[in-house]
Amino acid sequence: MPDTQRADARRNYARILAVAEAEVAAHGADASLEQIARTAGVGSATVRRHFPSRRALLEAVSRQRIEALAGRARELCDDSDSRGALLTWLNELVAYCVAARGLAAALSYDGADPESVHDNACSAALEEAAAPLLRRAVRHGAVAPDLTVADLITLIVGITLATEPYPDHSGRADRLFQLAVSGLAPLGRS
Amino acid sequence: MPDTQRADARRNYARILAVAEAEVAAHGADASLEQIARTAGVGSATVRRHFPSRRALLEAVSRQRIEALAGRARELCDDSDSRGALLTWLNELVAYCVAARGLAAALSYDGADPESVHDNACSAALEEAAAPLLRRAVRHGAVAPDLTVADLITLIVGITLATEPYPDHSGRADRLFQLAVSGLAPLGRS
Repeated sequence: MPDTQRADARRNYARILAVAEAEVAAHGADASLEQIARTAGVGSATVRRHFPSRRALLEAVSRQRIEALAGRARELCDDSDSRGALLTWLNELVAYCVAARGLAAALSYDGADPESVHDNACSAALEEAAAPLLRRAVRHGAVAPDLTVADLITLIVGITLATEPYPDHSGRADRLFQLAVSGLAPLGRS
Repeated sequence: MPDTQRADARRNYARILAVAEAEVAAHGADASLEQIARTAGVGSATVRRHFPSRRALLEAVSRQRIEALAGRARELCDDSDSRGALLTWLNELVAYCVAARGLAAALSYDGADPESVHDNACSAALEEAAAPLLRRAVRHGAVAPDLTVADLITLIVGITLATEPYPDHSGRADRLFQLAVSGLAPLGRS
């Protein structure tokens, strides 16, 4: 591909991604691919070439936030309080999922998407970044030894999806996550 | 309305509901209203007259299960172990939500649905039936005093939605709910 064509393709991609970010921010995971094509002034086929599935588009839109969350997980590994560091990170993940429409959908498992290279690239990147944070908390006995980062992400995705229709989405999501952290009915309370 | 017309309308409703149950069982909450009309051999307008919104249709399809779950909550109130009775009921709710497609969607909050008479009639019926079960467990100190049935339903709806794409939906949903019951990182463990 000649340089000018390559530069054109890059500009096209950047424009479509910017439009997609605005559409997902306004309409969430159900944003219309046709509307994105219309606003970006390209054909639907061009959008599909860059983003072969809705999932691929949501993952691209969420990439910077995923990278920021992965970076925070690495930073928090230096915190001496392993339970506190894990919970800080999980609370930031809840806050990101509530604030950024489409992020919970990008993080949700989608084994059925044949266009996905990995089962879920976004979730895999977060799982890798947060694994040391969880391992440290397990080693210190702060969390159950069989807990996985995938469990925690799935739970937070679920809480985000179920609380999304509420006017006080953020407060409800926080509250439910705190209940799950403390335990709804931990043995030994009664 | 003459008797024969009324009988016709009842038969029509029953046929549409039976078709809707089969479509929701096959395709979940996204079942096509147009397909339901085609299979039932009626026009889309007739389907919409009986079920003015997707939510109304999902609630009608889920009615018997909601009634069964409400009945179980009343039965379990006679159980002497208040924590165990509440958890038995909640585990049955998880199992119903996993087995019956569309039930979690019918139970989810939908403040935005202008066709809904109540904010959520299905969830309200369950909340009323399960409130005495929860109050008893609170009185015995088995669960946090500020926990509400709505919290528990929202959490279970979220867990059901987030685990639905997994091949082992039921096992994953159970596992996540047990983690939340015990607490992901209850204070005092570390």
